Amino acid sequence: MAKFMDIHNGFIGVTELQLREAVGRDLAVEAADGVHFEHTWLDAESGTAFCLSSGPSKEAVRRVHDKAGHPAQEIYELSVEVEGPPPVVRPNLTGVAATWPDTREQIK
Amino acid sequence: MAKFMDIHNGFIGVTELQLREAVGRDLAVEAADGVHFEHTWLDAESGTAFCLSSGPSKEAVRRVHDKAGHPAQEIYELSVEVEGPPPVVRPNLTGVAATWPDTREQIK
Repeated sequence: MAKFMDIHNGFIGVTELQLREAVGRDLAVEAADGVHFEHTWLDAESGTAFCLSSGPSKEAVRRVHDKAGHPAQEIYELSVEVEGPPPVVRPNLTGVAATWPDTREQIK
Repeated sequence: MAKFMDIHNGFIGVTELQLREAVGRDLAVEAADGVHFEHTWLDAESGTAFCLSSGPSKEAVRRVHDKAGHPAQEIYELSVEVEGPPPVVRPNLTGVAATWPDTREQIK
């Protein structure tokens, strides 16, 4: 099972509801080709959508999108992936420092 | 905090180790611009890399990649995302049917 990223153009101004409906059409037919669409992201301003999927081949991914009525313009087979670490959370200590009790007098 | 997908070209034949090293250079400098690179995928055959990040702006993402020494060719701000459901697992019942005891004689 390989992973794929495909790109669609022309999704300008598409809403979350419309995107869910479009992805739903892929999910409804994907099993016959052994494909699963895992995640879809959209830049509605440029109309560019990215679909991350797993499946047996680029052709299988292409077939599912074709059957769903929205052919992909580009499909890439992902040979390598790197997951970033969780973001570093830097606590804001400004407030803590301001409210820390001043014990200097006590330990004199 | 917004999400972004950016695309790099020219990563033909890049290995997992090399990709980790490249992403490591982003991770080392990202905090100064409030950016975090969450996931990177690579199609080493076409040399196309996709980076998913969160951050304050497209320009901030651009600055981090520039500082890391590998400018992105395209950056998209992701206004909508849809996560697919877990894949449907269809149990293979062929073997079960073949070994199921035949009790028809007993209940006659």
